[in-house]
Amino acid sequence: MKLEGLSLLGHGRVQPAGKPTPAINPATGAALEPGYFWATPKDVEQAARLAARAFAEYGHWPAKRRAALLRRIADLFETHAATIQERAHQETALPPPRLQGETARTCGQLRLFATLIEEGWWCDARIDHADPNRKPMPKPDVRSLRAPLGPAVVFSSSNFPFAFSVAGGDTASALAAGCPVIVKPHQGHLGTSELVGLVVQQAARDCNAPEGIFSLLFGPGRDIGMALVKHPLVKAVGFTGSRAGGRALMDAAAARPEPIPVYAEMGSINPVFLLPGALQQNAGTIASSLQASVTLGVGQFCTNPGLVFVGNGPAAQTFLQRLEAAMAATPPGIMLTADLCASYRSGVDKFSKTPGVRRVVGVQTDAGAGQAQAGAALFVTDAETFLANPGLMDEVFGPSTLVVQCSSRSQMLAAARQLEGQLTATIHGTPEDFTARRDLLGVLQAKAGRLVGNGFPTGVEVCHAMTHGGPYPATADGRSTSVGTRAIERFVRPVCFQDFPDAALPDELKESNPLNLWRLVDGKPGQR
Amino acid sequence: MKLEGLSLLGHGRVQPAGKPTPAINPATGAALEPGYFWATPKDVEQAARLAARAFAEYGHWPAKRRAALLRRIADLFETHAATIQERAHQETALPPPRLQGETARTCGQLRLFATLIEEGWWCDARIDHADPNRKPMPKPDVRSLRAPLGPAVVFSSSNFPFAFSVAGGDTASALAAGCPVIVKPHQGHLGTSELVGLVVQQAARDCNAPEGIFSLLFGPGRDIGMALVKHPLVKAVGFTGSRAGGRALMDAAAARPEPIPVYAEMGSINPVFLLPGALQQNAGTIASSLQASVTLGVGQFCTNPGLVFVGNGPAAQTFLQRLEAAMAATPPGIMLTADLCASYRSGVDKFSKTPGVRRVVGVQTDAGAGQAQAGAALFVTDAETFLANPGLMDEVFGPSTLVVQCSSRSQMLAAARQLEGQLTATIHGTPEDFTARRDLLGVLQAKAGRLVGNGFPTGVEVCHAMTHGGPYPATADGRSTSVGTRAIERFVRPVCFQDFPDAALPDELKESNPLNLWRLVDGKPGQR
Repeated sequence: MKLEGLSLLGHGRVQPAGKPTPAINPATGAALEPGYFWATPKDVEQAARLAARAFAEYGHWPAKRRAALLRRIADLFETHAATIQERAHQETALPPPRLQGETARTCGQLRLFATLIEEGWWCDARIDHADPNRKPMPKPDVRSLRAPLGPAVVFSSSNFPFAFSVAGGDTASALAAGCPVIVKPHQGHLGTSELVGLVVQQAARDCNAPEGIFSLLFGPGRDIGMALVKHPLVKAVGFTGSRAGGRALMDAAAARPEPIPVYAEMGSINPVFLLPGALQQNAGTIASSLQASVTLGVGQFCTNPGLVFVGNGPAAQTFLQRLEAAMAATPPGIMLTADLCASYRSGVDKFSKTPGVRRVVGVQTDAGAGQAQAGAALFVTDAETFLANPGLMDEVFGPSTLVVQCSSRSQMLAAARQLEGQLTATIHGTPEDFTARRDLLGVLQAKAGRLVGNGFPTGVEVCHAMTHGGPYPATADGRSTSVGTRAIERFVRPVCFQDFPDAALPDELKESNPLNLWRLVDGKPGQR
Repeated sequence: MKLEGLSLLGHGRVQPAGKPTPAINPATGAALEPGYFWATPKDVEQAARLAARAFAEYGHWPAKRRAALLRRIADLFETHAATIQERAHQETALPPPRLQGETARTCGQLRLFATLIEEGWWCDARIDHADPNRKPMPKPDVRSLRAPLGPAVVFSSSNFPFAFSVAGGDTASALAAGCPVIVKPHQGHLGTSELVGLVVQQAARDCNAPEGIFSLLFGPGRDIGMALVKHPLVKAVGFTGSRAGGRALMDAAAARPEPIPVYAEMGSINPVFLLPGALQQNAGTIASSLQASVTLGVGQFCTNPGLVFVGNGPAAQTFLQRLEAAMAATPPGIMLTADLCASYRSGVDKFSKTPGVRRVVGVQTDAGAGQAQAGAALFVTDAETFLANPGLMDEVFGPSTLVVQCSSRSQMLAAARQLEGQLTATIHGTPEDFTARRDLLGVLQAKAGRLVGNGFPTGVEVCHAMTHGGPYPATADGRSTSVGTRAIERFVRPVCFQDFPDAALPDELKESNPLNLWRLVDGKPGQR
């Protein structure tokens, strides 16, 4: 696999145009070879047309064939893992063990979707048999299943160069559903994106997929990305990134002559509520685990716990002392890009200057070399200050957290009510705490996609029951998840067949159930 | 039940403000008593606050209690059916047998959702058990289910005064999901809406529901309706009506600080493709059944087949002659409102004046009395004219259809490709026709929510497998249905619980499966 700095269009390459832009090593600030050429509006047009043409065939591929494609991508990713990880390390400063873990996660995810579509229960096949004798009108035979939407555009994120990037969860779930994918890679890992793009391109060729089920167009989000979202042949968008970026895509998609869904995951501050019983029993452990969660991966996770609510008794004091010590002992780390680091520093500055907020830890950093070095920060305030300053709910992307001391149960509840939509909300409590705080649980359930009990929100399990999505502004609308098998539901719609000849039905709906699926037949779930 | 012309706010009434507007009998043009007072912005505020407060309780009601509420609404509707039907007949000119049928459908729908939520499989409960020994990281216990979004606003339609109105499918599915409902009734049946609103209000009181799970605010869509859609406490919108109306709501909802989903069903022209084998065998039967479908209920259905594609051989000629005779023999009927009728006439005029389009039937009407009398219309054109005039894809809401003669198979395919998103597409064909036209089926599957074989699209079965929704502009985005049990999915989002104490979980997710639900446990569907 040779890096050429060129976009991938179907089975081929885009010709260079304009001036190249290099990838940057965030640890040193050094430019990496080669330079990257941005795609042009003509490339957008071609990628969209190829994808739409490919959809006419790929959208009807049997699940077995789509599964083989997903597995081939995973296999080739593993074949080239060393090359991909080496480049990713240069571009993101993420340590090799993390990149090895993320490789396993990414390939596991591709294979999970392969198994999912082979098992087929996900497609929600339903059959209501006819009743010609029903009065006053005969009942027709009605059958339905989930069918793919059409070409999807995927914007990859900076912080997971594999798992939420070119062959990450959005791409895997869209391809699993039967949707061609056009990726707009993140500029933080250009070479990694090209390498993984070549893997997907090769897998598509190996599986005789129609040209256009995959393209990858380098360029700035605000022009190439926007042009993709506005293209009439594009039918869905997946995005992981900033709130401003996600909202711009949502607005553009909603303003199209034909609006399309945007699944934007825009981050979150992931509040943690430490209830009295738990704090009494485990103040020290909670403090050290919280520090680990806040500073994991230099705090560069959308599930980073950026906000912690405690009471103000002695256990809370113990907790705060332990947390302060642990945060102060955290070594600084290199962030993914110098831009992200600058934005982290400005967030820390803003909190530091907010009256009523104390910065109790601010680990010093070395502003030399690539200038992407970030130190941990810990802030403490009281509930009155928190309630009076909505700016304290802004995400500070990096190894920082804000502890809010509440003087009463009702103050903690009021703070919970004030929160915006979140990816997660965490409660530490004894069984008695959980029972006594039903009101708090009710408020948090209305605010978040995932409620974590006695744990921490970082580390998002890839499984069937996962929800990685929450009410706006955590995600575009909270009705979906970008992690776990439910992610495939973002790229489908229900299609119904009434009184169709059996031979003309998709295999999933044929009377004999040739795929041996779990289906809903006459209102009863079962394998028939 | 006494008509007062006043909106319903929670358990009470809104005070009169401004000048009253009467309902109109479309058959005579006469005003009906009483006059109706429009709600004010203050009423919108109060209804939204009451709904949000009610949601905190109602959103956690067990399914059994919500089911009892739905059944109570159905029972009370039946108790008062004669009164409701009499008023609906005066306001809509729909004949008594139709209104009796629609009563049965509406009550059946409420009871179907009651059964659905009691059975509980719909809520997609998923459990992935923990594995503390997994390497490199322990696996958490993750569980999820579908949880209600919050207060929903429902805009009722003109053409189904019961089934798509105050206690219709949107209200039934939102209440079933656990969402309070605020109805913005259609101005075409004000008294009917008040009567049905009183039924729902009484049922809510009888079931001790928290005040605010139901309100009903009279007023124009462009101010009261818009104010509801823009209210920050409202979390979802259901709508059935015109494309302009639906799109205005979509745009307003997308522009909110917190965008919310709008489920707008905006109608369709429901193309019918008559393939050669079927036409050869059944030209006469197809013609008479098509006439029945086009003119049913004076053509006032969003599934009305407004566009028919045929070849140009002798069988097509026979079909056209039979259809012409049947359409010409259709007596005129009274439409729902004089406005709808005026818009029908202007649609018919537009088609009549399009060069290359022949109006072969135009049943005369009597422009006296309420001026809502409409006669059947039949137009014929060729594929070249159709392809050159996108205006011929505009919906003409009423008893009219356009037959397009295609000179080749590829011309029929080109016409199919030109179509916008549709609620339905219909194919008449022999098994051989279906096999030979896989290409056409593929195109239609990408365009429509429901494909009908050898039948007609009017008559939407309320069942589990139904999809009444299609790609934009048929509906807001085609990922949902407003008819059938899948309609409940519009008002929910997945909520996930990680490592939660069993006692703090919703019953649907408790380890012992106390509700005996079908759940997905460790990736396997089953009743455990």
